[in-house]
Formats: sequence, C-alpha cells, structure tokens
Amino acid sequence: MLSVVLVAPRNPLNIGAAARAMSNFGFFDLRLVNPYHVAFREAKSAVKAGEILARAREYQSLAEAIADCSLVVGTTSIGNRALELPLRRLEYGGRLIRKHMAGSGAALLFGSEKFGLSNEDMAHCHWLMRIPTREEHGSMNLGQAVAVCLYELARNPAMAKRAPAPKQPADAGDLERLTEVWLDVLRKSGYVHARVAGSTQLKVRRLIRRMNLSAHDAEVWLGMARQIRWKLDGCYPESE
Amino acid sequence: MLSVVLVAPRNPLNIGAAARAMSNFGFFDLRLVNPYHVAFREAKSAVKAGEILARAREYQSLAEAIADCSLVVGTTSIGNRALELPLRRLEYGGRLIRKHMAGSGAALLFGSEKFGLSNEDMAHCHWLMRIPTREEHGSMNLGQAVAVCLYELARNPAMAKRAPAPKQPADAGDLERLTEVWLDVLRKSGYVHARVAGSTQLKVRRLIRRMNLSAHDAEVWLGMARQIRWKLDGCYPESE
Repeated sequence: MLSVVLVAPRNPLNIGAAARAMSNFGFFDLRLVNPYHVAFREAKSAVKAGEILARAREYQSLAEAIADCSLVVGTTSIGNRALELPLRRLEYGGRLIRKHMAGSGAALLFGSEKFGLSNEDMAHCHWLMRIPTREEHGSMNLGQAVAVCLYELARNPAMAKRAPAPKQPADAGDLERLTEVWLDVLRKSGYVHARVAGSTQLKVRRLIRRMNLSAHDAEVWLGMARQIRWKLDGCYPESE
Repeated sequence: MLSVVLVAPRNPLNIGAAARAMSNFGFFDLRLVNPYHVAFREAKSAVKAGEILARAREYQSLAEAIADCSLVVGTTSIGNRALELPLRRLEYGGRLIRKHMAGSGAALLFGSEKFGLSNEDMAHCHWLMRIPTREEHGSMNLGQAVAVCLYELARNPAMAKRAPAPKQPADAGDLERLTEVWLDVLRKSGYVHARVAGSTQLKVRRLIRRMNLSAHDAEVWLGMARQIRWKLDGCYPESE
C-alpha cells in the first residue's frame, strides 16, 4: 500500500497532475495536508483522474496524514546540503519502497511547489529520496516529480531484460527466392556488368541477408521485385 | 545524442514542462514539428527552462526534424491495438535508446496532446515505445510523459544496488555505557522490580542492541539518560 501525500500544495494543475499520474500508474490513495482550498476545489472539478481526487483525504497536520504508515519517505531536490536524514537516490530508494509497500503501508511525501518539505516535515520521515536530476537544475515541477517517482515504483525491472517476441524470420529458401528475382531485375535494368556478374551476385546475396527480413517482409519484397521484373520485361525486348 | 521531438503540440504549459524536464535530466536538443504558434510563443516567454526553448528548432515536417537521427522512436499509449511496428515497454526500450545514443543520434517523438502520433508519423519510426501505465488509464499528460521517459534514460541502473554509506555504528562499549545508565534510570524511577531485576537487565540490554544505534545517536541517548538520572537523584532521596 502506498499513500501519496502532498503537503501544502498551491496549484490546482499540480494537484490534478499528481492525481492523473497516480491513476496512470495504479495508485489510488491521495492525501493532502493543508492544501490551498481554492486550488483543491478547482482541481477536483477539472481533471480526468476525478475518482482519485474525489476520494482524496484532507488533513490538518502531517502527523495525522501519515499516522497509519510504517514507512515515511520525503522527496527533496536538495543535493549536497547537510541533512539529518539518509538521502537516497530514486533508483535505490524506489526499490526499498516497493519492498516495503508489498507488506505494509508506505507514505511518499511531496512538499509545496515553492518551498518543498520543511525541516519540520522532514523530521517525520524515515529517510529522504532524491530524483537524480542535474545539479544545476535540480528542482522539478510537482506533477512531473510525482509521475517520475510513481513510474519508478510501478515499473517492472524484469521487463528491462525481456526482448519483444521476435517476428517469424524469413528462412533461407525465402531469401534465396528473393535473391534470384532481384538479380534478374538488376540484370534486366542494366545494373549488372557482365564482367563482374559473379562478384555482384555474391554482394547482392550478402546484402539481402543483412536486411534481417521477417518472413512477411521477404514476401513483400519478393512481390515488388516480381512486379518490377514484369514491367522491365514489357518495356524492353529481352537483351543479353 | 538524444533529440526530443514534439509533434504538433498545442499547450504552452506542456511545451514548457517538456523543456523543464529536459533541463532536469540533462537533455538539451528540443525540436518542434508544426507547433501551435501562440503556444510556442507563450511557452518561450513563460518558463524556467528558457535556454532550451530559446534554442529549440521548428520544422515544417517530421521528416526534416529527424533527418540527422539514426534511431527514431515514437511514444504511444496504445496497448493492444494492432500496430505495424514493434512495441516496446519503456524499461526495455529505454535500454536500447541509451545504448544507441551513446554513439549516435536518437530521436524520441511525442505526439499532440489530443491525438498522439498519427499513423503517418509512426511510419517514420524504427519502433514504438509505451510507458507501462494501467490499461484502464493509459494516456499520460504530455509533460509528465516526457519527464518519465527522460528519467528512464537518465537514471543509473547501477545505483539501484548501491546502499548509502552506512553511518559509523556505535561500538559495544558505547552500548554498554548506555545500558548501565539506562538501567540505573529504570531502577531509580521504580520501573525495575527487585524480584525480576536480573531478567529485566537482559531484556534492556537486548532492547538497546536492537535499536541499531549509530555512534552519534548512542551519545545523544546517553546524554538524555544521564540528565534524567541526575534529575531523579535530585527529586527523591536515594532509596533501595
């Protein structure tokens, strides 16, 4: 279980964007601490992720908002400033949160657009987490920061290794049929000089193997080559 | 080298958000195909990532925008619809792009907010990529989609395994000093019953080891315990 906690958000577009990213990545528990009320009202009436916003809970204090969570992680864009808490990069922190939330409640905190989390907010956290942005421009837009963190929690690391199912590759017979017709086209178009016909044939055979054709594409190429050969046959009397 | 290509973007906030995410994650080549001109002008004048927007190039056609790129990847939220192109999840596709862009130019395409990439746009792509969102709500906000993709390209997979440098842990001497003072406090406060004093001592010793204290925190706890003992000594005449 993961709760996304926005502390003192000010911009309705950002509240809406946070809710939309939650819906995209399959997280449904949104909590707001002291939101700017006009912003919350506007966000509720404006965006697609209405279900999540409608169910969002409002709290007067951060302590109340996270009372039922056994892991509390604050996000920050601060790089090197001395912090009292361990600071983990999203790549590593995300792994720890994924593990924790499989069994019990975790809260992920985002501070206000302008100031981020205060020192008081951070003191409620077990540790802090940083999205690996450039040092020269560390501060992210709130809605984008929520989206990036939730992607990291939702993504499936095992998928990074899995190649997509390969298409049925062309077999040697398909390729040889294509090679023959194509060589015929080249001869008829005058591309092949009799003097080097043997070496051209080898070049073309290798060229076609390097195309890495699927069975389907080999058939398409064969159809094109046959049509061209037919047209060449009609245009000029057979020579050579 | 990676170029981010926005095809027919309509909303200045999204153009600005894309540029901001690029700046956050260290990508600087933004290209726009047929942007809505008012939106582009507004975005240019509004956001922080001004450098990137100022240098952004505008093109009349997608073909021109990607002419110098040797890998062209289109993003789509389409899940199961039959596509003519291989569709890869961001976890895997990101790896392929990272590899390619180390040596030569790659383009990452994002379609308009309303319609995404058209079939004509997709035909320029080597393959398509999908952010692993829920099937029920696959479509992401443009600025958030750019941020998530660029995070995937910028993140360092090796970092997922690296634990942060551990704090200097307390050594057994620190812990034993703390245990002694704390037992003293418990005796003086009347917590320890003489009858079970031996077993309480063991419980407390184990309890303190389970705190996993750093050297610094052990010292803080020792200071607190000593102060409490001193106060207890002053409040009541020494008993027992």
